[in-house]
Amino acid sequence: MTRWAPGAEARLHDAALELFLENGFAATTVPQIAERAGLTTRSFFRYFSDKREVLFSGEEELPAIVARMFADADADLSPLDVARQGFRTIVFPRLVEFRDELVVRRQIVKSDPGLQERELRKLAILHEAATTALMHRGLSRLDAEIAGRMAVTVYDVTVESWLADDARGSLDDLLETVLDAVGRTATSRDPRRKGS
Amino acid sequence: MTRWAPGAEARLHDAALELFLENGFAATTVPQIAERAGLTTRSFFRYFSDKREVLFSGEEELPAIVARMFADADADLSPLDVARQGFRTIVFPRLVEFRDELVVRRQIVKSDPGLQERELRKLAILHEAATTALMHRGLSRLDAEIAGRMAVTVYDVTVESWLADDARGSLDDLLETVLDAVGRTATSRDPRRKGS
Repeated sequence: MTRWAPGAEARLHDAALELFLENGFAATTVPQIAERAGLTTRSFFRYFSDKREVLFSGEEELPAIVARMFADADADLSPLDVARQGFRTIVFPRLVEFRDELVVRRQIVKSDPGLQERELRKLAILHEAATTALMHRGLSRLDAEIAGRMAVTVYDVTVESWLADDARGSLDDLLETVLDAVGRTATSRDPRRKGS
Repeated sequence: MTRWAPGAEARLHDAALELFLENGFAATTVPQIAERAGLTTRSFFRYFSDKREVLFSGEEELPAIVARMFADADADLSPLDVARQGFRTIVFPRLVEFRDELVVRRQIVKSDPGLQERELRKLAILHEAATTALMHRGLSRLDAEIAGRMAVTVYDVTVESWLADDARGSLDDLLETVLDAVGRTATSRDPRRKGS
């Protein structure tokens, strides 16, 4: 990408976020974004297929990050413990660094049904990557699917809480609270009814 | 709706599914659907806002069904036991009745990224309805959110397995298998690492 204008992608990204926030996502056009960034519309399309994708750039790296997270962990760790370790050591430090931008991004995504659907696809991509990685760790397809989805649920609820209200504590503390709720929910079933 | 042509909505629905299957979702147009159903394009738009929504008709009833499922259940049942009871007694009988159509619908949805996103929104609507219903049962926001999402995960994985391969058993049996996997995943965490 360096053969194009240096920093062009970041400038387009920042310009888009500003305009989405000022005028709304629907009312913002690609020419406006390009103009705000001091670039041409053609430049915009070198980096993004449409204005929606500005909010999902970098997403293509996620499956590889998830795969590494699960592959690098000790073989005796349970799926949720692997996820927990990966969130704390690999994912959360990056989120903390970009918190202000993520709060703005979340506000924009929540404002538009199409963006909400796209965000849900991002989570689906994440849980598919986790499922594949867990199968490589020897889990059955079903166990990997369930653990992959539960890991993404834990991630999403934790990060949502954190972005919605910074007074509620650190990401690490929120993660433990959410994992406790998962344990509580899964173990509260009435054994008399099991298999009945 | 009876003031319009009787059965018009069902005819449009069936015609759309046929055409999506024959020619693909992207290549099918609203005029083609209307023609196949023996109706006008204007009639189509009396029932559906666009061709995508044909695959999601009836969805607006889902939150009310979920709310009733959780409100009617015994107060001492755990969230996942309430979900299990509701799936078995209210939801699954209807799915069994429409299995052939659901297999076709699933094939169409899987063929198109936009439809996949829309399907994910349907699941999000379901888990939001479950979360609200569980808060009415006295759960904290966090516990309701986690249990609501876990219930939808259980539902989705169960129904997906069932539609993907009918040799794998009944919906009731698949549900128990999936619930067992949820219990296994949630309880396999290493207690030494908890809160560390």
